[in-house]
Amino acid sequence: MSKDFLYNEIANGIARQISNGILQPGDKLPSVRSLCHEHGISMNTAKRVFLELEAQSFIDAKPQSGYYVSKRSYTKLPLPEVSRPSSRANDNEPDELISKVYANMGDENLTLFSISAPSGDLLPLAKLKKEILQATRELREGGTAYEPLQGNLKLRRMVAIRSLTWGGNLHEDDLITTNGAINAVSLCLMALGKPGDTIAMESPCYPGTLQLAISLGFKVLELPTHPITGLEIDALKKAIPKINLCLLVPNFNTPLGSCMPDEHKKEIVALLAKHDIPLIEDDIYGDLYFGTQRPKCCKSFDKEGKVLWCSSISKTLAPGYRVGWVAPGRYKEQLLKIKLIHSISSASIIQESVANFLKTGKYENHIRQLRRTLHDNYLHYAHAIAQYFPEGTKTSRPQGGLAIWIELSKEINTKHLYELAIKQRISIAPGRIFTLQNQFENCIRICIGLPWSDEIRSKLKQLGNLTKKL
Amino acid sequence: MSKDFLYNEIANGIARQISNGILQPGDKLPSVRSLCHEHGISMNTAKRVFLELEAQSFIDAKPQSGYYVSKRSYTKLPLPEVSRPSSRANDNEPDELISKVYANMGDENLTLFSISAPSGDLLPLAKLKKEILQATRELREGGTAYEPLQGNLKLRRMVAIRSLTWGGNLHEDDLITTNGAINAVSLCLMALGKPGDTIAMESPCYPGTLQLAISLGFKVLELPTHPITGLEIDALKKAIPKINLCLLVPNFNTPLGSCMPDEHKKEIVALLAKHDIPLIEDDIYGDLYFGTQRPKCCKSFDKEGKVLWCSSISKTLAPGYRVGWVAPGRYKEQLLKIKLIHSISSASIIQESVANFLKTGKYENHIRQLRRTLHDNYLHYAHAIAQYFPEGTKTSRPQGGLAIWIELSKEINTKHLYELAIKQRISIAPGRIFTLQNQFENCIRICIGLPWSDEIRSKLKQLGNLTKKL
Repeated sequence: MSKDFLYNEIANGIARQISNGILQPGDKLPSVRSLCHEHGISMNTAKRVFLELEAQSFIDAKPQSGYYVSKRSYTKLPLPEVSRPSSRANDNEPDELISKVYANMGDENLTLFSISAPSGDLLPLAKLKKEILQATRELREGGTAYEPLQGNLKLRRMVAIRSLTWGGNLHEDDLITTNGAINAVSLCLMALGKPGDTIAMESPCYPGTLQLAISLGFKVLELPTHPITGLEIDALKKAIPKINLCLLVPNFNTPLGSCMPDEHKKEIVALLAKHDIPLIEDDIYGDLYFGTQRPKCCKSFDKEGKVLWCSSISKTLAPGYRVGWVAPGRYKEQLLKIKLIHSISSASIIQESVANFLKTGKYENHIRQLRRTLHDNYLHYAHAIAQYFPEGTKTSRPQGGLAIWIELSKEINTKHLYELAIKQRISIAPGRIFTLQNQFENCIRICIGLPWSDEIRSKLKQLGNLTKKL
Repeated sequence: MSKDFLYNEIANGIARQISNGILQPGDKLPSVRSLCHEHGISMNTAKRVFLELEAQSFIDAKPQSGYYVSKRSYTKLPLPEVSRPSSRANDNEPDELISKVYANMGDENLTLFSISAPSGDLLPLAKLKKEILQATRELREGGTAYEPLQGNLKLRRMVAIRSLTWGGNLHEDDLITTNGAINAVSLCLMALGKPGDTIAMESPCYPGTLQLAISLGFKVLELPTHPITGLEIDALKKAIPKINLCLLVPNFNTPLGSCMPDEHKKEIVALLAKHDIPLIEDDIYGDLYFGTQRPKCCKSFDKEGKVLWCSSISKTLAPGYRVGWVAPGRYKEQLLKIKLIHSISSASIIQESVANFLKTGKYENHIRQLRRTLHDNYLHYAHAIAQYFPEGTKTSRPQGGLAIWIELSKEINTKHLYELAIKQRISIAPGRIFTLQNQFENCIRICIGLPWSDEIRSKLKQLGNLTKKL
């Protein structure tokens, strides 16, 4: 077993004990020396375990004393239950609040808890700028020419190489670039489905895909979803006869932040393949894990080419660049045709600059830092929510990603909370927009992409006070 | 009447006489002095008329002798007839050759007569590069943030200001930016139509819109189109009861290059408005006029907000930038919703850089030069076609844009010509891809966006020889 693997394995184990509450805030951890003995590892490896856990805010070092479980591991609020949407597919119009919430996008006068994207303060702006310059120099005709339909070769190559991190084994020719992941999902739906088809999704799920599905004439079957382990497999099994397509966000989906265990992924891929149902896998949050290891993707279990793996850099590097891609398996020709029809090609300069950024290892450094910051943010945000929100509040425990899902007591309608909050220049995402059914009226999603500060704390306090009034 | 207007008016009149054959190649034009007398204008204005006509290759100056109609005004080949497509709407799959032809896009080993875009040699690459750098500096968070849904404000402002050039009077708030014009048209169709609807188009027309319409489940009604004046109004009148939507390219449409007279535009807008049929107007070639004046747009006659005016910089500045827009009139809310659903936003950096380029007047200088070059190209290409193609060949007489439409004798199938040509590394667009019906099998479209050279001449000769063999 390699040293790298060992150190990951051990840190992972301790992190899990902290998350599960076996180790409590303030608990002393074993010393470096005893960790060596216990696992038969070197002092260096043992030290690395603690440094890693400290970097991820699981533990704090006290000089001359040792390591302790961080107090920022606040008393946790209870988890929301597994969702229980209706087992009937429907094609209701998405809630009109979606448009209102998204219209706030880019508004500098608001505190945007509603937009699931990292703030610019967390992004490598200067380095990206340099890559843009480089790309205008390198590209044929300065990037003004139409690029090949399949998209920038260098970008496809880099995404293929990085597929190893999630258990994939893609080749550059397996990939097609798109204008962000939502455009990739949109192309998949147009290529594979037709009006009247039924598509299964997690519930709650990303409002954008609900809108997309309905606008294309699909029916949506929302499936019970666990806040920790994601989609309930038994529910999917029962739904099989009713569905034509499946669209899942297995890793740190928004709004729940759940992460489907690998065995579930494997089972779901096999189940869907057996019934010849294509799986569109949206993996935009996969790189944002708080733990020690990148979770696998369903695509890594895809033997028959029926998983269409979609992702982008919008949640990790530059939302405004609109750079995404899809590995469509056996559906490549259909996807290319639809891409040609709806957009011809993507902006070369931006794709080339992202490819160069990925190539030089800058991305690895950036994403490591971003993960730590987001994990810290999560702990801070969750702590503040526990402090300021009324009794009876429940929250998700995301294992990665950009959001916390908050369930308030039943009598609170978060549409009203939205209206009150926006008057105080705070934008939140009310639960009702994450479903086509009448559920989640007492929930909100809070994004953790804004850097932690006293101002953010006081905004969360304001929000908590508004909630108490309701 | 202002001097500017006068000089345009007079140059326009002479250009028209040359185009109509009233003035023949080699004919001597009146002297500067007699032009002054005739029109009651100053020497300077008269000189400007001749300089303008010379710059546009209509006339040549002979030292110590005067101005003559240019000999490059070659003996013209006959015009193709008005098209006569079936009067029944249909939803046939577009010809599979479309994908083949577009797959050649970006292939540096081919002479791409098939792609309707200006070559990079004709574009202001260095200046655009500078604008990209500038944009990364100016934009909030270096352009990495999601931009507002409606798109970059500066770009919308510049497009609104420039709407005066085609008789429009747009406000920045009337516009939504998109990923190129085809994306604008795609959003319009998704926002306004539903599967089973019938959409009227010119015939022949751009293959991309045929694919788009069919992929969205529309039926297409192709309408008779005159190679000079565009859509036949009487045919549209008869079709009114059958159609839900109309999609036209009134200015220098591809492949014909026809330009609808202003009175026709006015009449069509009124007719469609009366029957509550939205008109999607694709104006991507409008800035590429060979004459002295920018043609108006249907949008300029739109009193009820039922014209959705789409355009882009793909044919004039940078195809690979994917920057377009739409002024959707009364349908703005629907369009915004569909844009959010399918792509969220566009790449800010690119939009900002184009806006800056438009702002500084660089665009006006560039486009003036590009128009002259394309007009020259047209005359060279047409001359070569007249020389090298077999007897019985007819060609369009585009008044702007990027293409020449060639009609060969009936027994020639240009699908075969395509296959033969591609073996000689020449890519052409066979006529069959510009329709869903069985017509135009003996036609091809040749684009004039590649700079004129001996190599291009010899490629056209090769193509002519292949045609003769068939």
